[in-house]
Amino acid sequence: MKVNLMHGAGGAVFSELLGETLTKYTHNNAGGIGLEALDDGAVIPFGGQNLVFTTDSHVVKPLFFPGGDIGRIAVSGTVNDLAMMGARPIALSCAMIIEEGFDIDVLKKIVASMDEALGECGAAIVTGDTKVLERGAIDGIAINTAGVGVAEKPVRDCSLVPGDVIIVSGTIGDHGMAIMTHREGFDLGEQIRSDVAPLWPLVEAALAAGDIHAMKDPTRGGFSNAINEMAEKSGVQVRIKEESLPIRRSVKSASDLLGINPLDVANEGKVVMGVAPEDADAILAAIRSHPLGKDAAIIGVVKEGTSVILETSIGGERFIEAPIGDPVPRVC
Amino acid sequence: MKVNLMHGAGGAVFSELLGETLTKYTHNNAGGIGLEALDDGAVIPFGGQNLVFTTDSHVVKPLFFPGGDIGRIAVSGTVNDLAMMGARPIALSCAMIIEEGFDIDVLKKIVASMDEALGECGAAIVTGDTKVLERGAIDGIAINTAGVGVAEKPVRDCSLVPGDVIIVSGTIGDHGMAIMTHREGFDLGEQIRSDVAPLWPLVEAALAAGDIHAMKDPTRGGFSNAINEMAEKSGVQVRIKEESLPIRRSVKSASDLLGINPLDVANEGKVVMGVAPEDADAILAAIRSHPLGKDAAIIGVVKEGTSVILETSIGGERFIEAPIGDPVPRVC
Repeated sequence: MKVNLMHGAGGAVFSELLGETLTKYTHNNAGGIGLEALDDGAVIPFGGQNLVFTTDSHVVKPLFFPGGDIGRIAVSGTVNDLAMMGARPIALSCAMIIEEGFDIDVLKKIVASMDEALGECGAAIVTGDTKVLERGAIDGIAINTAGVGVAEKPVRDCSLVPGDVIIVSGTIGDHGMAIMTHREGFDLGEQIRSDVAPLWPLVEAALAAGDIHAMKDPTRGGFSNAINEMAEKSGVQVRIKEESLPIRRSVKSASDLLGINPLDVANEGKVVMGVAPEDADAILAAIRSHPLGKDAAIIGVVKEGTSVILETSIGGERFIEAPIGDPVPRVC
Repeated sequence: MKVNLMHGAGGAVFSELLGETLTKYTHNNAGGIGLEALDDGAVIPFGGQNLVFTTDSHVVKPLFFPGGDIGRIAVSGTVNDLAMMGARPIALSCAMIIEEGFDIDVLKKIVASMDEALGECGAAIVTGDTKVLERGAIDGIAINTAGVGVAEKPVRDCSLVPGDVIIVSGTIGDHGMAIMTHREGFDLGEQIRSDVAPLWPLVEAALAAGDIHAMKDPTRGGFSNAINEMAEKSGVQVRIKEESLPIRRSVKSASDLLGINPLDVANEGKVVMGVAPEDADAILAAIRSHPLGKDAAIIGVVKEGTSVILETSIGGERFIEAPIGDPVPRVC
């Protein structure tokens, strides 16, 4: 059997590959939350504190797109995985694999963009590695970052409980549709920009405002994948109100044109959380007070049961299912 | 200006790229030893302890070779960078970039090999990421690992002092020459095997035996590069006795055939250290008592001055210089 593109899309097919191959390590836990949890990061007891550790490789194409670039994604992706675990980002590693012939001025722009994103969240790149491959052995550049952070109280993706209120921190589908429309050269009047940004300051404010039971960032596989993972791992049902979902008009138009569900495409600067109902308003207000959270909304509730159900604006119901694979490859 | 293969070889040309581009982050330190030190890893004060953090991407070709494979290198490379900082490895991340069409059975073998190497050093893979690229966008597979560990007393590569004794933990040049002769299909009677192995248990024994002032693993750029970096960063002269350098006969023969200096090629299971003279015998004995260290030897001394000087067996002297680039690409 061969690896195929669906295996890398973060959906159901990827889960098969994980189960059969990539989680077969017998040495998979360092005492806290390990690989077996398949959460956004691991937690390691260290010096009496919760060390959070995570990694992501970034292969987005094109390297520069409306709203961001591979450098900004490389920092934000890993910072956001730390933030989803409730962790303040401390330090990142940066390992680049570069194709021979790559333009050094482009590399300088990427490094400057990474540095800017670091400044937005208080993290630093403290260690690195660089490999150069012969022409044709890598398409341009791939950037891996790993990150370490500290969590006062780690937040999981598997701890939704019935009664929780579901909040999303802003409009859904911006990153995936920005990449797609930019690639296709669509002119939709308003250019769709990626939402790529480090979320820690927003998450920090939300954590201070109330009790967040579970968090996840809807990256590969989009909102559909994230909310299904949260529901399934928590053993609950989630009910989402369609009319409450914040989606930009331009993203809706582009989605219709391309026949892609905006709930299925990646976001790079959004968080989905389940919060204690009595704290929902305070947490929503805290998120909205941050520039990255001004479109935040309460979009649903958690019930006993299974599945994620969309309550449509005309009174119908249908399942939100995790996409089999991401409709947009090379998105992050 | 374009990136070329020499930029990835860990030698002098690479240093230029680092200085001009890859170390331009203004956010480059989290309070301890940061990126600016260009040591084998960073040190971060965390919970009253020294958290050590490092990363390496692995692109070795072929994926399987005498003595090892890409999985074993991916674990050993990062564990050894931690060990060189005096750190016990705790946890690794594993991020794979895989080409569409890659054989899943080969992937399983790589994962099993990584797991075996983890078992040899007490570390665990606790978090990961997988990207699948379209055919032709990556040559097979690239594996990044980052690692976290804890150091009672961090060891630097820049703290040799005059009077120190230089020890190498075993034969030099095995990994690079194993890759090279395997690629070329040379039959030298005795097959050269890579030395790739996680060194923490050996280093732990050495640290317990005496005062190690500086350590480095001679990977890309080989012994020549490692010892020159140590001497230059420490502001000292190192004098090496040629007849004391442990080099296998088969490695010597292959080097002569290929016109490559065995001191210039990568090792993946060796450490070069500068130790207090009064502790040298005890440290050497501790290293030799480990199976990976049975060929360890005292090979030189540290003096006031600059440069690395080889004292030849016939009484001559010449410089050991850092190679401009690694003579063997895709070696790790």
